Amino acid sequence: MREYNAAQCAAALQAQNNILILTHRNPDGDTLGCAFALLRALLSGGKTARVACSDEIPQKYAYMWAGISVSDFTPDYIVAVDIADEKLFGEPLYTGYRGRVDLCIDHHLSNTRYGDRLFLRECAATCELVYEVLAASHAEITKEIADCLYTGLSTDTGCFRYSNTTPHTYRLAADLLEAGADAAEINRVMFETKTRTYLKLEELVLNNLQMYFDGKCAVVTVTKEMFRQSGSNESECDGIASLSRRIEGVTVGVTLREREDGTFKVSLRTYAPVDAAKICGKMGGGGHARAAGCELSVDNFETEKQRLLEIIREELESI
Amino acid sequence: MREYNAAQCAAALQAQNNILILTHRNPDGDTLGCAFALLRALLSGGKTARVACSDEIPQKYAYMWAGISVSDFTPDYIVAVDIADEKLFGEPLYTGYRGRVDLCIDHHLSNTRYGDRLFLRECAATCELVYEVLAASHAEITKEIADCLYTGLSTDTGCFRYSNTTPHTYRLAADLLEAGADAAEINRVMFETKTRTYLKLEELVLNNLQMYFDGKCAVVTVTKEMFRQSGSNESECDGIASLSRRIEGVTVGVTLREREDGTFKVSLRTYAPVDAAKICGKMGGGGHARAAGCELSVDNFETEKQRLLEIIREELESI
Repeated sequence: MREYNAAQCAAALQAQNNILILTHRNPDGDTLGCAFALLRALLSGGKTARVACSDEIPQKYAYMWAGISVSDFTPDYIVAVDIADEKLFGEPLYTGYRGRVDLCIDHHLSNTRYGDRLFLRECAATCELVYEVLAASHAEITKEIADCLYTGLSTDTGCFRYSNTTPHTYRLAADLLEAGADAAEINRVMFETKTRTYLKLEELVLNNLQMYFDGKCAVVTVTKEMFRQSGSNESECDGIASLSRRIEGVTVGVTLREREDGTFKVSLRTYAPVDAAKICGKMGGGGHARAAGCELSVDNFETEKQRLLEIIREELESI
Repeated sequence: MREYNAAQCAAALQAQNNILILTHRNPDGDTLGCAFALLRALLSGGKTARVACSDEIPQKYAYMWAGISVSDFTPDYIVAVDIADEKLFGEPLYTGYRGRVDLCIDHHLSNTRYGDRLFLRECAATCELVYEVLAASHAEITKEIADCLYTGLSTDTGCFRYSNTTPHTYRLAADLLEAGADAAEINRVMFETKTRTYLKLEELVLNNLQMYFDGKCAVVTVTKEMFRQSGSNESECDGIASLSRRIEGVTVGVTLREREDGTFKVSLRTYAPVDAAKICGKMGGGGHARAAGCELSVDNFETEKQRLLEIIREELESI
């Protein structure tokens, strides 16, 4: 593994053809934005290239590949974008391409350095790095490429809301807007739209919301029965997990999610100074100071839930 | 009324003292961000100044005035920020100061040009203009001032989500981040936190959600009884109004809100090509292509609601 910068990536891509671009499983706006921005630039440059993903790509990203037609080919050069670990290729890409990546472009410091060449820097979104590679390639940032890259920036920062957003992120967003990115429409699709099944799940969950300790702790429970009633599923559950700590005054948000086998996965989200890792550690779990997890068994669910609440109460009283 | 630019505003403020800064009623992040940024800069420059608002300022904005102590004084110079019309002063400011504004700084093209001097330009937030005035004054953009101005930018653009966000908005956000603005915390308070009463209202509303015409039309009803049950009120209703059109596949979102007198206010939100103004026009109301309104009477609520749905059906079938 050798480190590459943007200019070296650009030169390597210029020298190659029949380029396969890998995205991670459960693809998100960043891995897809990187892949299709790079694909469009390569195709414009006369290269043969295509994007591969182990999972089906959600239709809401369809604008990224609109107007592109690609045929299959045997790859001579393999690029992985926004993938920290080969295991995240998913199947069938893991079996097909592990150990074969020529160039990895990524923003995760946890990257396992699996590629032959690696362009890695911590930043809000890998799209920031792909933009640099395209700039070094003197590729034209078309409206379509700008849409792809903007999507990565926006989705990986919660629409510029999270603390990973840097001045550079904002300035790149400005450049992409000038290049024609349809930011308002992209943000509408990515952040405003909710499915009916998700809304039904949210309603059921809110109906069961429990508050403890003068409103400092909120407990949200998501059962298999709620998934069944709402027609929703695990893949729509991200919003639910953040619901509990969004309630005014809450410093400990607890989400209990029932698994297929009847055990409960506990997600704890806290605000300073409450230590989520400390609380979950006492339950046999672990994690970070503001986000941690543990498990509750099937047989002793109520007893273990009470024990968890007791630990939270002690932690709240100690601060 | 004479037009001023940023440098002229800066010179005028430099020449004055005992400066009163007016904000609009139902104050939001932009009017308050402008006011407290300007106040802090004026106080640092040795001026006597204070901010006035007809309504109580919500506690979530408390960081804007943290550490400031001001005493009362008789104003010699009156500045209005982000106020399109004197009527928006609210009471008691309207009675006290209409016809007396020396300088108005605003981004609404609908501004009624009530001030003696006016610095007006259409942009995402009036905070963009106040930033220019402070820059022209060579005022130091402290962390506290950056927090105020960032709040205006972020809240008036729905956290950089709406189509009013320009490249300039993003670049200014980058500058304010570099000046120390605590963007992630501000966005958490402004966009993540929901009150328990609002969540209860959302639950009741979702429980009553009605879908029509193959899921293209969603109708959300907010009754007085729901306000009573949830403990919520009109001031928390903004989120509810946007709920109906956030559902996947919906092109016409209808919100029916019951007033004190039992009549219903109808808010229609559409996506292209559905014409909201045309639909509401047929009901005796009006508005814009994507956002319009009308009324339903107490006595014939169900009949009028059916008539509204019939008009929507015809409009959907015609496109």
